Amino acid sequence: MCSFADTDNFATMSDELLPLVTNLARHARAASLILATTPTAQKDAALLRLADLLCSATAALQTANALDLEAALTAGLAPSQLDRLTLTPARLAHLAESVRQVAALADPVGEVLDDWTQPNGLHIRKIRVPIGVIAIIYEARPNVTIDCAALCLKSGNACILRGGKECFHTNTILAGLVQEALAAAGLPAAAVQLIPTTDRQALVHLLKLDRLIHCVIPRGGESLIRFVTGNSTIPVIKHYTGVCFVYIDREADATLAENILVNAKVSRPGVCNAAEQLLIHQDCAGTVLPQLAAALSAQGVTLRCDPASSAILRHNGQAHVPAQPSDYTAEFLDLTLAVRVVDNLETAIATINRDGSAHTDAIITRDPVAAARFQAAVDSAVVLWNASTRFNDGFEFGFGAEIGISTDRLHARGPMGLRELCSYKYQITGNGQVRV
Amino acid sequence: MCSFADTDNFATMSDELLPLVTNLARHARAASLILATTPTAQKDAALLRLADLLCSATAALQTANALDLEAALTAGLAPSQLDRLTLTPARLAHLAESVRQVAALADPVGEVLDDWTQPNGLHIRKIRVPIGVIAIIYEARPNVTIDCAALCLKSGNACILRGGKECFHTNTILAGLVQEALAAAGLPAAAVQLIPTTDRQALVHLLKLDRLIHCVIPRGGESLIRFVTGNSTIPVIKHYTGVCFVYIDREADATLAENILVNAKVSRPGVCNAAEQLLIHQDCAGTVLPQLAAALSAQGVTLRCDPASSAILRHNGQAHVPAQPSDYTAEFLDLTLAVRVVDNLETAIATINRDGSAHTDAIITRDPVAAARFQAAVDSAVVLWNASTRFNDGFEFGFGAEIGISTDRLHARGPMGLRELCSYKYQITGNGQVRV
Repeated sequence: MCSFADTDNFATMSDELLPLVTNLARHARAASLILATTPTAQKDAALLRLADLLCSATAALQTANALDLEAALTAGLAPSQLDRLTLTPARLAHLAESVRQVAALADPVGEVLDDWTQPNGLHIRKIRVPIGVIAIIYEARPNVTIDCAALCLKSGNACILRGGKECFHTNTILAGLVQEALAAAGLPAAAVQLIPTTDRQALVHLLKLDRLIHCVIPRGGESLIRFVTGNSTIPVIKHYTGVCFVYIDREADATLAENILVNAKVSRPGVCNAAEQLLIHQDCAGTVLPQLAAALSAQGVTLRCDPASSAILRHNGQAHVPAQPSDYTAEFLDLTLAVRVVDNLETAIATINRDGSAHTDAIITRDPVAAARFQAAVDSAVVLWNASTRFNDGFEFGFGAEIGISTDRLHARGPMGLRELCSYKYQITGNGQVRV
Repeated sequence: MCSFADTDNFATMSDELLPLVTNLARHARAASLILATTPTAQKDAALLRLADLLCSATAALQTANALDLEAALTAGLAPSQLDRLTLTPARLAHLAESVRQVAALADPVGEVLDDWTQPNGLHIRKIRVPIGVIAIIYEARPNVTIDCAALCLKSGNACILRGGKECFHTNTILAGLVQEALAAAGLPAAAVQLIPTTDRQALVHLLKLDRLIHCVIPRGGESLIRFVTGNSTIPVIKHYTGVCFVYIDREADATLAENILVNAKVSRPGVCNAAEQLLIHQDCAGTVLPQLAAALSAQGVTLRCDPASSAILRHNGQAHVPAQPSDYTAEFLDLTLAVRVVDNLETAIATINRDGSAHTDAIITRDPVAAARFQAAVDSAVVLWNASTRFNDGFEFGFGAEIGISTDRLHARGPMGLRELCSYKYQITGNGQVRV
């Protein structure tokens, strides 16, 4: 994973950047007040226009993208990074389709969350409203520009975008298309703004504008998130990656365990909801672990085993390597799995709460009492019983597109979709009540 | 208002403080995992025991409190600060009663917030859970020690308390009583811990422990909140004070307007939901403002008027002073009210969104269309129609005791009671589902 601190430019530290970003944030704030009461149809019109523009405006976009790719190639970016930077016509069509999907989602704004009358006759309504102004800080992934703009617009939030400098030209064109779509729908272009510089100092200034910006969402690796958290006086919602566990209880069906574990580890090892560690109850380890190990090895997974699990596999002549202590808290993000044998359910729970990342953990068992205890006591955003960890995902929850999987406990936890991009307010109606 | 930066001690900067606070936070984290699944009856037993202890353990408490008061007197604290520091037997009885009230509130933990089944058969439950470990940073008010301990305990959170150094001896005894009550109920004493030093460096260390502490709540003046926000990598929930407006629309009943405005300004001018500014529609200012001014003056309120309102009152020979520009964004917290005449409803809305603090604002009108527009467009936590701003309060909402009135937009907005001291988690139950 590239370090955020290494890939950006600290050279320019001009004091002119403070008025620049302050002005931009003021415009965002003004736009947010308009967006807060904009009808759904008008927001959707802007989104559908944006989808059309993404499909039609390919020439300027390809030129800008080629410019970014050329510079990135010279700078020696890794092939995976170059790939993420590349916008092909097929990818643009896919991006346009995702914008149309956001337009089709229900508008979260205005939903009545609670509604009651106090004994003194005051009628209190709690209604969902946009947060206001959201800053999104991300790396060299141009699709994030469009995804975030679409989600913020639909949820009535103004947004300020700051992408990685490697896709600055591409982002500039993309943000221009968003602003063209906003204007066509009669909405303020400042509802979506790209910071017009990749100077790091502009970001540092931005992160202190807590009177104008209400929320910062860093999307990227841990070094980016830590940089933002360490420099921001604005509330930050973090999406750290996950150290997810699968625990096979004593009363587990071996085939069901195998299917779930293989899916959790292998289906997409590089994402945050992939399994990184297997815990297995000592009473079934001897019989079940060899079957699991065989299935995982067949998929190319390397097992890093504690002494107890190692002894079982060695006895069976199955391939594995001894675990290092750091493996027990590791997020491998590849075809590697740590394995430990545990005494009992309580040890499994304590191990997960100590060594996991409170993201997504699963128990495989036939025993409903064990499952209930596990789901209550494991202190994670999503705790599954007899299902794959990969289900911690906005689409799989039926939320539609998400801005990320929050690893925070305040405001949003787990999949963060349109509803989680909202706050609430209280509207109180009286007939002259005063406080006694 | 005293400055947080001025009242504390920067002298000791020992590196021994980091292991001390880290150890304390680790114990809090371990306790939080136990509290998360503690039955309501056990938490309530600890609270009721605490209430009894507060009533019976007065001798040690009076001694400690006298020690703090003596030092505070020597240090030259203001009479209002000395008063807040003082714990009389009557105040202790009142504090005990507030703890009993918290015990009587419904337990928010475990409530099912949402519950649905996906097409693939996965059953998803969203349930309310404690946040985890909460740090509360506050000034020299011993009652906050008990209030916060009680609210955190009832909501299943472990808490770390750091009060002002002026009440350190009193807090030490109070925290000891809380721990005695916890132990008596079979709960870990580390569920409520007071930082055993008032060294500022310990607080600075604490605010970086984002892997052990999940939320920081500063309770106090703006300088304390800004210090915490500027130094914390843990999410902070802020309770800034309020610049609250009352807007009298063209179609307002003058007597109703007078009653509400007087209540909003006079009933308790030093609190955050008191009105600080009156906006009045130009069409009724000539007739209604003199009546309002007379009522307010009779209660000792000084009016700081813009030129238009000043002209009306001068014409009537009514007392007032000209406003300075800073008065239009001021939180007076005393019997002072800024007054402006506005052209129309939209100017009132724009003025409040620009110069207010998004806390609590009210419209007085007979016109339901104007009221609906005001309640939708004013971007504040609580927007009232024909009721006093003083109703932004946890008890007045029916929530019971609150930890404060959040001025943030993330997680909690407005009164922050037991439910707002909670997060949520997803429990997913399947029968072998894997992600395709």
